[in-house]
Amino acid sequence: MKIGFIGFGKVARNLVRLINSENITFLTSAQNRSENTIKNMEESDVEILDTFKEVATLSDILISANSPNQALDVAVKYGKYSKGIYMDLNNISPKETLEINKHVNNFVDGAIIGKIDSANPILYLSGKNLESLDFLNDFLEIRKISENPGDASKLKLLRSMYTKSLSAVLIESSEVAKNLNLEEEFFDILSLTEGEDFKKSALSRINNTKNSKKRKAEELEQIIDYFENQDLTMVKASFKKLNR
Amino acid sequence: MKIGFIGFGKVARNLVRLINSENITFLTSAQNRSENTIKNMEESDVEILDTFKEVATLSDILISANSPNQALDVAVKYGKYSKGIYMDLNNISPKETLEINKHVNNFVDGAIIGKIDSANPILYLSGKNLESLDFLNDFLEIRKISENPGDASKLKLLRSMYTKSLSAVLIESSEVAKNLNLEEEFFDILSLTEGEDFKKSALSRINNTKNSKKRKAEELEQIIDYFENQDLTMVKASFKKLNR
Ligand SMILES: NC(=O)c1ccc[n+]([C@@H]2O[C@H](COP(=O)([O-])OP(=O)(O)OC[C@H]3O[C@@H](n4cnc5c(N)ncnc54)[C@H](OP(=O)(O)O)[C@@H]3O)[C@@H](O)[C@H]2O)c1
Ligand SMILES: NC(=O)c1ccc[n+]([C@@H]2O[C@H](COP(=O)([O-])OP(=O)(O)OC[C@H]3O[C@@H](n4cnc5c(N)ncnc54)[C@H](OP(=O)(O)O)[C@@H]3O)[C@@H](O)[C@H]2O)c1
Repeated sequence: MKIGFIGFGKVARNLVRLINSENITFLTSAQNRSENTIKNMEESDVEILDTFKEVATLSDILISANSPNQALDVAVKYGKYSKGIYMDLNNISPKETLEINKHVNNFVDGAIIGKIDSANPILYLSGKNLESLDFLNDFLEIRKISENPGDASKLKLLRSMYTKSLSAVLIESSEVAKNLNLEEEFFDILSLTEGEDFKKSALSRINNTKNSKKRKAEELEQIIDYFENQDLTMVKASFKKLNR
Repeated sequence: MKIGFIGFGKVARNLVRLINSENITFLTSAQNRSENTIKNMEESDVEILDTFKEVATLSDILISANSPNQALDVAVKYGKYSKGIYMDLNNISPKETLEINKHVNNFVDGAIIGKIDSANPILYLSGKNLESLDFLNDFLEIRKISENPGDASKLKLLRSMYTKSLSAVLIESSEVAKNLNLEEEFFDILSLTEGEDFKKSALSRINNTKNSKKRKAEELEQIIDYFENQDLTMVKASFKKLNR
């Protein structure tokens, strides 16, 4: 079996590391790629072809893992050559996912949860014929969501909706606590019911969010845009909060 | 040493159970009390005096644990007779706490965290001369916050600000997930990063909040009222959410 990559960065490199089998050959191309990416390829167990068109034509599974703003372009350019499964792993919106689905055969939409460079990332998948991907379970944990392409990226948005709103709540309540000179006690009292590592995890969420306020606010904006028919009182407040 | 109770319900009964020492006598009164409360007294190891005035006069520590809407009245009526410490354990606002402080000597403001009928509730205290309460540590966990009466109830509000906003976030995101037919997966994906019992604890928060929406909304209103000079974007959104 041949698994091809369009994009050979952190995600591709780690999938090659995890999916370690004699029966599987990995393909990619150096076409127009940066030095860094070519070095990445050379250090991995992957065959480097001349063009991505060849990669697409020869692969049983073609994995698009390049960049959110390249995902659609890549699908339009190479989707038509791929006869097997086309799996998109880019962090894109459900709308873009459905757009990509129009340009490729056998589309599968994937979301990686957990650190891709860890021992056990989990891959959520949605799309038709997912059973043909069952063999991946030998190498990393696969969870099948549904037959509907787009569900994996919807799930990613739902996750992000929760975690970002939670960060906004933590920022707000810890700041009021600080203003009242009760910040230590605030973390202490909540640790009793929320678990011992509450303070550590809360501070890490707070710092993380504050350090990338603009990006987090943009992601919230995408959520608001995509789920426009839903009641998003808390998400909208989080957006407002991060824009302060 | 004598510890007196004004109010002999769940809190008083459990404190008598926990603070178990030959050197301590508990006092209360049946004055105007219900059958149920009198039964409670008779089943506990407590001396029943004729009037609360006597209880207040004789106690080294007088504990007010009756009802949020009785707390101030009780302080005004009996505070003047108490020469020792006057400890208020009612769930009242920081404003009411400071009001009570005007009517009693040696005021201590307490917040019970965790279930009072469990083996290990924790008692947060603020006020002057807290060291005279150190002996309580032999019977239940005591945490001293500061010398300022009112800090214990502020801390309670801060805690409630966080937990209620979190519940509003959980209600919103799980409802969007449900509408997208991804509720199971939503809980599943979050359990990976938020801890194994995420689903159980999330559902319990959601149900709890939905079953007492009106009361929770009122509590949020008190928080908004009390912290009026702070940025309460998320709390206000939670209030709006619960009022839907
Ligand atoms: N890292 C994660 O844990 C993670 C998790 C979930 C999802 N994702 C998503 O997966 C995608 C890849 O992430 P990554 O961390 O692997 O990124 P990365 O390390 O930055 O690598 C991106 C790779 O894509 C290549 N590329 C960019 N545009 C291309 C194009 N038009 N044609 C062919 N190759 C192209 C880059 O090559 P050049 O260097 O030559 O430009 C590079 O090799 C992103 O969309 C990201 O959002 C990442
Ligand atoms: N339960 C908890 O885990 C907990 C935790 C933290 C704080 N609190 C607070 O502690 C207080 C007591 O809670 P609880 O659970 O013990 O309540 P409870 O079980 O309902 O008992 C209240 C007791 O106060 C008595 N009482 C009411 N008004 C009184 C008055 N004016 N004078 C004298 N006694 C009076 C009641 O007697 P009658 O039956 O005769 O009216 C009853 O014995 C409340 O303010 C509550 O908010 C409770």
